[in-house]
Amino acid sequence: MTTLQQQIEDFGRRARAAARVLARATSEQKNQALKDMADEIVAAEPEILAANAKDLEKAQEDGLSGAMIDRLTLNSKRLLGMADGIRQVAQLADPVGETIKEWTRPNGLRISKVRVPIGVVGIIYESRPNVTSDAAVLCTKTGNATILRGGRESIHSNIAIAAALGRGADKAGLPSDSVLLVPTTDREAVRALCSMDKYLDVIVPRGGKGLIETVVSHARMPVIKHYDGICIIYVDAQADLKMAEDIVLNAKVQRPGVCNAVETVLVHSAVAEKFFETTGKALWEKGVQLRCDERGLAIASKLQPAASRLVAATSEDYRTEFLDLILAVKVVDSLEDAVEHIEEHGSHHSDGIVTANEEAAEQFLREVDSATVYWNASTRFTDGGEFGFGAEIGISTDKLHARGPMALEELTTYKYLLRGTGQVRV
Amino acid sequence: MTTLQQQIEDFGRRARAAARVLARATSEQKNQALKDMADEIVAAEPEILAANAKDLEKAQEDGLSGAMIDRLTLNSKRLLGMADGIRQVAQLADPVGETIKEWTRPNGLRISKVRVPIGVVGIIYESRPNVTSDAAVLCTKTGNATILRGGRESIHSNIAIAAALGRGADKAGLPSDSVLLVPTTDREAVRALCSMDKYLDVIVPRGGKGLIETVVSHARMPVIKHYDGICIIYVDAQADLKMAEDIVLNAKVQRPGVCNAVETVLVHSAVAEKFFETTGKALWEKGVQLRCDERGLAIASKLQPAASRLVAATSEDYRTEFLDLILAVKVVDSLEDAVEHIEEHGSHHSDGIVTANEEAAEQFLREVDSATVYWNASTRFTDGGEFGFGAEIGISTDKLHARGPMALEELTTYKYLLRGTGQVRV
Repeated sequence: MTTLQQQIEDFGRRARAAARVLARATSEQKNQALKDMADEIVAAEPEILAANAKDLEKAQEDGLSGAMIDRLTLNSKRLLGMADGIRQVAQLADPVGETIKEWTRPNGLRISKVRVPIGVVGIIYESRPNVTSDAAVLCTKTGNATILRGGRESIHSNIAIAAALGRGADKAGLPSDSVLLVPTTDREAVRALCSMDKYLDVIVPRGGKGLIETVVSHARMPVIKHYDGICIIYVDAQADLKMAEDIVLNAKVQRPGVCNAVETVLVHSAVAEKFFETTGKALWEKGVQLRCDERGLAIASKLQPAASRLVAATSEDYRTEFLDLILAVKVVDSLEDAVEHIEEHGSHHSDGIVTANEEAAEQFLREVDSATVYWNASTRFTDGGEFGFGAEIGISTDKLHARGPMALEELTTYKYLLRGTGQVRV
Repeated sequence: MTTLQQQIEDFGRRARAAARVLARATSEQKNQALKDMADEIVAAEPEILAANAKDLEKAQEDGLSGAMIDRLTLNSKRLLGMADGIRQVAQLADPVGETIKEWTRPNGLRISKVRVPIGVVGIIYESRPNVTSDAAVLCTKTGNATILRGGRESIHSNIAIAAALGRGADKAGLPSDSVLLVPTTDREAVRALCSMDKYLDVIVPRGGKGLIETVVSHARMPVIKHYDGICIIYVDAQADLKMAEDIVLNAKVQRPGVCNAVETVLVHSAVAEKFFETTGKALWEKGVQLRCDERGLAIASKLQPAASRLVAATSEDYRTEFLDLILAVKVVDSLEDAVEHIEEHGSHHSDGIVTANEEAAEQFLREVDSATVYWNASTRFTDGGEFGFGAEIGISTDKLHARGPMALEELTTYKYLLRGTGQVRV
């Protein structure tokens, strides 16, 4: 075993021990820990900003883009925002301890299904240092210990933030090992974490394909993937085209770089012409490039957009998460064709229909097998906050345990308690 | 790609197509399919028994034990029982379509969390041919397609049973590919299934350590393990010792070869002497060997049992699923020590406390992190039928998605439906 493996295994042992203490903590204790964590983040401003300066210096050296550097940058205001976010999580209801179901069997045995923490949650992520705080406090709130493994670019910031969070837990009488951050960017650390099914109950990878692929290939414990969003909106023959314009524009343009932004629009042939005249034009005005199938291209080119705004789509375009001002468009002849396309090409993240026809909408809602399926609304609402969950670890693209916004409840599991009076099986 | 891999991939594609049809089937259609499956099992008696005869012949040749051969054996009565079991599942409520939660956001967006099938469920199991029918019909009931991979010993029986089930589905207008059985015992088939995350949404391995280890190491999709049950009962200082005797005897002796049978008893030092005089003697009378720690040995040996009935425990005994008339016993000094032992040595399957002290019981229920935790009842109740679930795939020893008895509800997942009136994100 290498030194790194030993170190990771030591983390596992410590996290497991912390998890047992956390599982027994009351909501009050956990909320106190969150408040103390928020205070420690504010108090540690000098250290955290000094650490962040090191990361920023490296980022400059490595020639990272302005957008990347902005995402990495911490300052007083952002740290206060981080602390505020932690205090808001303290205000949320604690799902742990909830009785999900309760019933009594004919033999008098009383069965309760109660919500409990998962145990030790591993979170592997890239880039932004605020994920360190977001993810850790949601785990603490739900009585889980967490082992974090952040991105290379924010390693110094992450170490400083995690240390402050650990001090907050300690101040509130909970283990400082409740939040552990792997203090190395060695890739072997990810594989070591993935092998530790003895100590980690679940791993949540958030990030690019390469990272998720590594985790899926190596993990021995359950993985809750936060994969890409190839979100698709179908504009039906009976769509209100003004509404379609508003929705598609919002879903594509408001924040193109996120997983719930739309990447493909399917438009019914009966309204394709009008669609390009309204939504198409509006998208062009916002600088969006449309990548169209043959039929779409024929219609749209009549509107004579700038050459860079209209190109022929390749089959790969319909499977691509652009995260940019690019939209794949395809003309279809029926709702069935739209559903078929979505099932074949989408990533089952967030897909929607725009239609005034309720029957068509309900068929779409029933037949599209995605985490979130929309009727007459922007796909951008797939978000823990927008769902009213208060916060989220991210958007799960997996089907089991957590699907769609992964929030506090999804950081718990259940156990059955059986209270008897001497029952034996006959 | 080998021919076998191609064949398994073809199974995957066909199962995925079947799953899409099944997901849209009504409860009536699915129940009709179950009834037709039951009829087909009865009608196929000659083929199934002929196939079973081949398996039995091979079993004789290979010198399998009488118990094993009995488990493999099918006859008219057992086939009628199998058909009956299928018809009973048809009577159960269909969880698919249920609205789990529903709420409206301040912006008017209506969110529903609804229960849907998982999709394609892979089930890998050993021995008994009736698992083929049990597992397949639970999947059909919940709108899932299933790919089955049974044990080598029952391969011919399994093929015949799966064919009959497929005919039943077809008769009811559902795809005969709803139930697919891998018609080979080649071990490569398991690895091929494990690599097919494109087509399989989950794999459920039921069986020995080797099988589960293979699946865990290779699977790219979620795995719901049905591992061993090292079930532990703690007899508290304030236990009703007559009740303790009834419970321990039932949990050890009624059916020692199952996963919810007790394997270790922890007894509080204050009642250890009386425990051996009552429960201990009763266990010896039933032919149980006690493997005791030093203190237990000192007390128990005063009772002068037959030498084969009382031996010193090794540390391995406390981590062993005996599945036999063997019980590890350890004297502990407190509830805390008992919980500590369970957390360290148990398999988090089914653990219980016997005590008249409610406070102690509640502490135990709270602190033991197992799928099912008992107060004053036999661990043998960890069973889908005993829970009132009607049927079960098995007992999950995993923490996520399904924990404890895995029944119809655990064969479903959920999706969110969002119904709007043109909402966009601001």
